[in-house]
Amino acid sequence: MSLVVVGSVAYDGVVTPHGSVERMLGGACTYISLAASYFTPVRIVGVVGHDFAEEDHQLLTGRGIDTAGLERADGLTFFWQGEYFENMNQRRTLRTDLNVFETFDPKLPAHYQDEDYLLLGNIQPALQRQVRAQMKSPKLTGGDTMNLWIDIAREELLKTIAEWDVLVINDEEAHMLSGEKSLRKSAEKILAMGPKTLIIKRGGDGAAIYRSDHYFVAPAFPLDSLFDPTGAGDCFAGGFFGYLAGIGFNPASDFDKKELNRAVVFGSVMGSYCCERFGVDRFRTLTREEIDARYNQFKEFTHF
Amino acid sequence: MSLVVVGSVAYDGVVTPHGSVERMLGGACTYISLAASYFTPVRIVGVVGHDFAEEDHQLLTGRGIDTAGLERADGLTFFWQGEYFENMNQRRTLRTDLNVFETFDPKLPAHYQDEDYLLLGNIQPALQRQVRAQMKSPKLTGGDTMNLWIDIAREELLKTIAEWDVLVINDEEAHMLSGEKSLRKSAEKILAMGPKTLIIKRGGDGAAIYRSDHYFVAPAFPLDSLFDPTGAGDCFAGGFFGYLAGIGFNPASDFDKKELNRAVVFGSVMGSYCCERFGVDRFRTLTREEIDARYNQFKEFTHF
Repeated sequence: MSLVVVGSVAYDGVVTPHGSVERMLGGACTYISLAASYFTPVRIVGVVGHDFAEEDHQLLTGRGIDTAGLERADGLTFFWQGEYFENMNQRRTLRTDLNVFETFDPKLPAHYQDEDYLLLGNIQPALQRQVRAQMKSPKLTGGDTMNLWIDIAREELLKTIAEWDVLVINDEEAHMLSGEKSLRKSAEKILAMGPKTLIIKRGGDGAAIYRSDHYFVAPAFPLDSLFDPTGAGDCFAGGFFGYLAGIGFNPASDFDKKELNRAVVFGSVMGSYCCERFGVDRFRTLTREEIDARYNQFKEFTHF
Repeated sequence: MSLVVVGSVAYDGVVTPHGSVERMLGGACTYISLAASYFTPVRIVGVVGHDFAEEDHQLLTGRGIDTAGLERADGLTFFWQGEYFENMNQRRTLRTDLNVFETFDPKLPAHYQDEDYLLLGNIQPALQRQVRAQMKSPKLTGGDTMNLWIDIAREELLKTIAEWDVLVINDEEAHMLSGEKSLRKSAEKILAMGPKTLIIKRGGDGAAIYRSDHYFVAPAFPLDSLFDPTGAGDCFAGGFFGYLAGIGFNPASDFDKKELNRAVVFGSVMGSYCCERFGVDRFRTLTREEIDARYNQFKEFTHF
């Protein structure tokens, strides 16, 4: 039932129309693991520098996250700084200091290798493959990627996702990866690349599941105000995979397709909570009861 | 149970990436009434010129539409010509000849005036009020408008919609009418203008219901190819109001909110079928069974 998560653990600086924060805990692995931790035990693989604060480490372990695979390297933790524009759908990167992340060589502790669930956060595709190769026989492997790898490491990326059950990307990445303008045609082409399940995230416009035998679409949860979207896509992935791991989902079985729908809705719920505060702050107080309440609200406003 | 519909009856010319048609039956009243006719008896009010073809008249009467209120004036029928861009979400008007529509003075036949349901298609707000005033006491009054009236006849429009139960507009119009950027804030402001129910259409991104006590959002039906979106918004309104009229919906009663959700889904279904052929062509063969089948598919891909 444990979910192994690999990805960046970082410090972020953000500027939004609602204010700015110079330095806060961030990184795909952080957001994914915090979101997933509400559904299933999580074990992370990542690297941080000597500046990684004990209180940040405790935020993770306090949510029951296994940090045995979180390496402490000599140097500074990955730092990213970005600015959101007025509509909050677009951002630009102001600064990227890879620091210890530049030479990240993920190694899975022995007790991770037998786990059934693996989520490969957005890192170089070659590293994602290397992590996948260290797992014995996960039931479900999925991951994310980004425009950079589609652009500069396309062949490696195609080899990598060919081994995955689920690919989770956003609409821009789907168009870029497939070369198609319509989402449905993009999905068709991407499904032919290997993953049997494709999840396309569309930010404020929700998310959809594409499979050759299934289609599902969920709107975004309507937030009164979008505060800081940093990490929302990763929290979506964390909620999605966390839920599936928590129920012992097996894609090789004759599973109920509605479980995938529910996973997308839990993913959307986690993404929506993430946006309510700067960085990971919402996860300091969020409870499973609040998550279930929003899941039920989702049902209220989509069922007919 | 009959739905009275007022609006333009026109000939349209369209240019799309899929081809072009020089002249075909169109107009808001035409699309609305054809779509609504699958759910409830419809009586239309409109004006056409001496060039209005008998076969076009028969398409309407063949669907059981009462055309007693369709005036034949001396002159030519309203003509509109537009061109769709590659993404099919935007269009530009190439030509507008108001013709007999310029002096349209809607008069309701006596047997229309007792009906319970009234849908005011997009025409000058003053004319919409004039039609409303001719009805004795409709249970449900709703309508559409457009950017032009929000721009040049704002005060008249505000007086007009203050009398409506339901306003159906698209997202651009909602932003323009409210002066707000977010859809939720737009909705809040518009609900304060009078209508207790606001439906915001978002084309390929679906549609949502906003009420002070209810929220619902439906995605757009995923079409393999969007052929000609002309009239899709009107067909949405026709399906929405047609369904409500068909079930005898009474907004003054303690009604089931889910009936509004179902109406939106039937509206979306009608809009989606409309896009599958040029102009009104899809309605020459469409059956209620096909409508119900798509409604059920909608349920499949939105429920969890």
